[in-house]
Amino acid sequence: METTYFNGNYIPKDEVRISPDDRGFLFADGVYEVIRWYQGGYFELPAIALNLIRLNHLEHENAMLYLQITRGEARRTHYFPHPEVDPTVYAFVFPFVPDNSLRDSGIKVMLKEDIRWSRCDVKSVSLLANTLCFDEAYRSGLKECIFHRNGFITEGSHSNIFLVAEKCLYTHPESNFILSGITRKNVLKIARELGIRSCEEALTVDQLSSVNEAFITNTSAEVTPVIEMGCILIGNGKPGPVTNLIGGKFDAETALLKG
Amino acid sequence: METTYFNGNYIPKDEVRISPDDRGFLFADGVYEVIRWYQGGYFELPAIALNLIRLNHLEHENAMLYLQITRGEARRTHYFPHPEVDPTVYAFVFPFVPDNSLRDSGIKVMLKEDIRWSRCDVKSVSLLANTLCFDEAYRSGLKECIFHRNGFITEGSHSNIFLVAEKCLYTHPESNFILSGITRKNVLKIARELGIRSCEEALTVDQLSSVNEAFITNTSAEVTPVIEMGCILIGNGKPGPVTNLIGGKFDAETALLKG
Repeated sequence: METTYFNGNYIPKDEVRISPDDRGFLFADGVYEVIRWYQGGYFELPAIALNLIRLNHLEHENAMLYLQITRGEARRTHYFPHPEVDPTVYAFVFPFVPDNSLRDSGIKVMLKEDIRWSRCDVKSVSLLANTLCFDEAYRSGLKECIFHRNGFITEGSHSNIFLVAEKCLYTHPESNFILSGITRKNVLKIARELGIRSCEEALTVDQLSSVNEAFITNTSAEVTPVIEMGCILIGNGKPGPVTNLIGGKFDAETALLKG
Repeated sequence: METTYFNGNYIPKDEVRISPDDRGFLFADGVYEVIRWYQGGYFELPAIALNLIRLNHLEHENAMLYLQITRGEARRTHYFPHPEVDPTVYAFVFPFVPDNSLRDSGIKVMLKEDIRWSRCDVKSVSLLANTLCFDEAYRSGLKECIFHRNGFITEGSHSNIFLVAEKCLYTHPESNFILSGITRKNVLKIARELGIRSCEEALTVDQLSSVNEAFITNTSAEVTPVIEMGCILIGNGKPGPVTNLIGGKFDAETALLKG
């Protein structure tokens, strides 16, 4: 049984008791983070996360940490507890071996109207829209669902999306319509270092036909090429050179994290 | 300690253990219902609900039942568990005495852009948008937050809204932008019985200045007059005759439920 962190204690997962009064359970009133462990190095390094890696003997593995914090346990009311109550803090780690074959072949993704709320910049557990849409993609054999809102491509159900067109790397600007992930920021930095022109500007669904390359980014997918989006072939249907260049540099940087 | 229902058993609330793998906790992947007990009669009458009333000695009280069902316990994945797992079923009851003074005085409510997702017709626990907006209203001393989307008034954070204008009772039509509550349906039925013309059509924020009366409906508020909405005085700032007529008939009908 894996050892988890729960409100100050390191305990087996089956001893964790989330209260039915927890606002995370009742209201999706919580936030979360997923952090990758690269055989000896975190992108971020809180003490609890490191303890969990050790307690679960994952020091020399590739692993993932999941952290969730909710507004805590209180009698059900739509307003927030007043006075405030202690937040619920829960974290667990698990071995994670990425599926690199997808990075070689590229993935096909669904394209769908964005039905989410307009505070996508909050990394909340209010994820029903994301799971509904991703599940639909998954059952169709697709690896992600990319959203568009008012015609503009925003991001995926749990990834950001980059598009290469007119010799420029496009991605939706930071706003309330996307969750600007750490990997997204890191890719923009890498593009700068490589002298690749980037443009934080949303493209429209109509512009997809003139896109040469596409890739998604997130903590687990890192840089994964997209070769088809909503039945539209991207470029020649193969991972493109800009994608591979950025992905290669990303890999080189994470390799340096390994202990 | 109150007795609750949890996955087949009637147990004290502090013995209920929601798993940290529960999709309700991780993804807001669940739905809920709130049902009112009128001293001897439910609007709906499932056996579990009645047992909970008895076990908590609330037969002769006014009470409320809360029921939540999530997609169950499964390792965290954005796609739904396959094969399916048993849902988590949780219910509790509590004494509920409505604050009738608000029905006499009427309430003031906030008016705010609807930031929720576009599947408001699903009564899911993905309620962070609702709680964020309601909490803002609550901290301002207001009793509800009414939403508008693209200029059209939709509903409240946990209520439906009715507006009286041009001798007609307006409310947003059933669509993906509102949760069409049981009380809303019941009020439309009562209006028909009373010969009040009703119109399931959304009014705009601009039209509010010509509205004579307004009221919200839900299981706990029943029919509660609104006298001010986003600093716009409704009618003469007092509960209006149509509202009182409908509220009176609603009370008469619920009185018949009492055992």
